[in-house]
Formats: sequence, structure tokens, C-alpha cells
Amino acid sequence: MVCQVELICIGNELLIGKTLNTNAHWLSKRITSLGCIVRRTTVVRDEISEIVASTREAIARKPDFIIITGGLGPTFDDMTLEGVAKALSRKLEMNDEALEMLRERYAEFTKMGRIKDSNLTEYRLKMARLPQGARPIHNPVGTAPGVTIHENSTTILVLPGVPQEMEAIFEASIIHLLRDKSDGLFYVERSLQVLGVVESSLAALIDRVMLEYPAIYIKSHPIGSEPEVHIELHLTTSSRNKEGAEEEISKAMEKIQVLISQKGGRTGFV
Amino acid sequence: MVCQVELICIGNELLIGKTLNTNAHWLSKRITSLGCIVRRTTVVRDEISEIVASTREAIARKPDFIIITGGLGPTFDDMTLEGVAKALSRKLEMNDEALEMLRERYAEFTKMGRIKDSNLTEYRLKMARLPQGARPIHNPVGTAPGVTIHENSTTILVLPGVPQEMEAIFEASIIHLLRDKSDGLFYVERSLQVLGVVESSLAALIDRVMLEYPAIYIKSHPIGSEPEVHIELHLTTSSRNKEGAEEEISKAMEKIQVLISQKGGRTGFV
Repeated sequence: MVCQVELICIGNELLIGKTLNTNAHWLSKRITSLGCIVRRTTVVRDEISEIVASTREAIARKPDFIIITGGLGPTFDDMTLEGVAKALSRKLEMNDEALEMLRERYAEFTKMGRIKDSNLTEYRLKMARLPQGARPIHNPVGTAPGVTIHENSTTILVLPGVPQEMEAIFEASIIHLLRDKSDGLFYVERSLQVLGVVESSLAALIDRVMLEYPAIYIKSHPIGSEPEVHIELHLTTSSRNKEGAEEEISKAMEKIQVLISQKGGRTGFV
Repeated sequence: MVCQVELICIGNELLIGKTLNTNAHWLSKRITSLGCIVRRTTVVRDEISEIVASTREAIARKPDFIIITGGLGPTFDDMTLEGVAKALSRKLEMNDEALEMLRERYAEFTKMGRIKDSNLTEYRLKMARLPQGARPIHNPVGTAPGVTIHENSTTILVLPGVPQEMEAIFEASIIHLLRDKSDGLFYVERSLQVLGVVESSLAALIDRVMLEYPAIYIKSHPIGSEPEVHIELHLTTSSRNKEGAEEEISKAMEKIQVLISQKGGRTGFV
């Protein structure tokens, strides 16, 4: 069974169109390259009821991992941990390890002259209150620690929404968790640009090649607008045998290029 | 009651990190500017079971609109209409109006020399098979018509995933539907850049200003990475009285600038 991941992104800024969801894009690319599958991404507002509902729904689908981004900071609208705790019917409690992480970080900021005092105000302490049974994850870049929680067979990973912090925690502390569950799968992809054949004519050619190479998934993506429109074909496969997969995808590429040229189309690699 | 909208984006390319979800971003911005609220965005794979589940879940939350993008084309992985029909327990049936739209479009393509014949092959006919009771929406740019379906109190709008086509249909045929439901609300936003105060110190100032101006929502967004990090404050409000809202947001901006400068921080507009 391939490792299944769901993403939940929390933040009004994503739903008012202020912020482009580059976190979901970055995570999806990294997770896929590690041999896991992102099943679904859900984006919800900074509201407890929305966080509770989306977390419970994801847990009910039993993925191996749920990665939640956003809402870990010190402001009133940062309510992810409260929502996740509620979704799991756990209490929030002061976590000593997280508290120590915050203490060190604010002491460092004071030393650097970035803040006047390192007092752990109520706003700062909030970031150390984790759901019962959770563990903090070191944040190499910012203040708020990430959080790991185990619930049934699912590992919930909560990461900050600031891209630099999310990416740093992922690279330092999440990759090995996914790799351990990825079952040794390699993900291989290729792209081919097609000109001179419309998508509705390509459809039959894609069907033929996928019938001959059932392990290869081929998707067509129209690019640009008329009259310069062209189609990008994207071929993907996952396999424990990386070289075998690369050979197979190359054969499928050759086959579809021949069929396209027979239809009067032109192709080029990217 | 403010007009509630949910987005469902369909496509493996979004969940493997190949394509950045600019459709959700563009739609969220436009919908918000029209005085409606995007409650949630769900991204699922090109699988019938995923389309059925996400559509049913969204309908159960009773939004005014569900806008579904992607999976309307001629290829095997375009299965949105089949999934939506199944979610609504309706049959797919040949729609005469949609058939006429396709016939015209392929005749035009043939005339332009883009395709050799305008035959409505099985791949092309697929785009005219709509759920029972649905109506096609003219696509000013591409081939696949958009689709409108009414289900209880929710209007489901299905749009192509190609950004140019999705945007063209939205501008031509969707805007007035949202505006009619938006209850005359205007959305007003302002941004303020803050340097020299960390987010955990800003938190208390935000609380004070939001207490004084309860109609104004203030979010802080850390930008960049250490040591050049700064915070963007984003102030938003919705009101039937646009001038009143602009006045209120200006007052809240002034107030928070004063508080930030008292804390030793600097601010600038964007």
C-alpha cells in the first residue's frame, strides 16, 4: 500500500486570494518525489469549527500522514492547535520541551537586539500549549515549534504557515518519516510538448499508449490560449525498480511521439 | 447572510506539485471582491470516488455556490461530469444545447485549419453529456462548455481547468450570479508593512485595535527570512456602506501605526 498523505492548509489569506498556496504546491512536489501520494488538499479559514471539521474528516479517511500548515503563531487568529486538540478530544497542555524551545529562541532574539526582553508573555506561551500526547518539532528558522501527534494509525504533523519555516522543518524532521513509509517507491516523470494536434484528437492516442503501457499514466495539459495553444503531455509512473520505470516511460514516450507524428503533429521535449 | 462559496479543484497535477493552483487563487480573489466568502477549497485527484465524495460533502454544507474546476475535457482522465452526476444520483445524458456548442466550435476549428475534420468523435461527444437537469455555459475561449446544475439551495458551476477558459467563462457568465447573491456587500482591504517589532509583540496591539474597531479584521503575515524579516499587517472589512468601511479601516490603520511606533517599530504602506 502506497503511503497516503493529506494536506490541510489553514488561513483566511488563502481563501480571500491574498496569498497563493505555494505551501501546498511545494509539499505536494516533495511528498510525491519521496514516493508517497497526496490524496487531498483542504483549505479552510481561521475558525475553530472549520479546523475541527477538516481535521476529523481527514482522520476518518485514515491516511498515513496529515500535514497541517498555518495558524501556529502568537496572534489571536492562530488557533490550529486548539482546533486540532478539539478534533482529537484532547486537552491543550503546557509542553515542557516546547517551552524550552521558545525560551531559547527569545533569549537568542534578545541577544541579537531584535527584541527588548525575552519575557514569555501570554502570547508567546500560547505556542508551547500542545494537545495532550503531542511532541514539538524544532523550528530551525522561526519561533513556533512544529508539532507531531499520533492518532490511531495516522501521524499528524503541524507546521508553521511561513514558507521558510515550513520548508526548513520538513527538510530537517519530516523527510525521513515519509521515506520510511514510502515502501521504496521511486517516482518518475517526463514531459512532451505537442503542437498541431487538438486535445480531442490526442485522447485516442493516449488511450492506445496507456493500454500498451499500463504502468504509465499520461495526462494532457493545454497550455496558452488560441491560436498559439499547444498541449503538454505529462507521463508519470511509480516503481520500486527505478531503472525499469525509466525504460518503460521512455518506450511510452517514443510510442506516443510516433502516433502524434502520424496524425501530422509535432513534438519536442522540455 | 453573506453569500457562501466552496471551491473544488480536480486534477492529479495539483496534488503531485506539477501545477500551482492559480485557479483557486484567482477565483478566491474575484469572489471575495464581489462581496462573497470562499468557505473552503478542496483539491482532489482524477478519480470518480474522490469527485463524488468531495461534491457530496460540499453539498451537505449547503453553500450558495460550489464552483468545480477541471476535468471537463475529452481525455480518459476528464471525469468531473460523471463524478458530479453520480454525487447527485442523476444520469448523464446528451444535452442538445451543449452538442450545438461543440458542433459550432469544431466547425470553426476546421475552417481555421487547426483540425482536419469536425467529426464529433466519441471523445468529443463526451463533453456534451451532462448530468440530467444541467445547462451548458458558453465557453468563449475553448471547446468544453461550462455547466450549471441546481441542487436544493446550491448552484453548482463546473468550469474547465485551463485558466484562460475558466476565467473567460467566469467573467462572462458567473459574475452576475454571485453579485445577485452578495447582498450588496463591499470588501475593503489595506496593507501595512511593519519593521522592528516581532509578531509576538504585535499580537497584543492587534487585539487592542480589533477591540476598538470590531468590524475590522487584522491579520499579521511574517515576510522573508531572518534577519531581514518584517511583518505585513492586512486589514479587511465588508460592509454595505463602502465609504463608511473605508473611513473605519483608515482609523484602525492610524491607531495601529501609533501603537507600533510607541513600541519602537516602523511602518510603511504598500
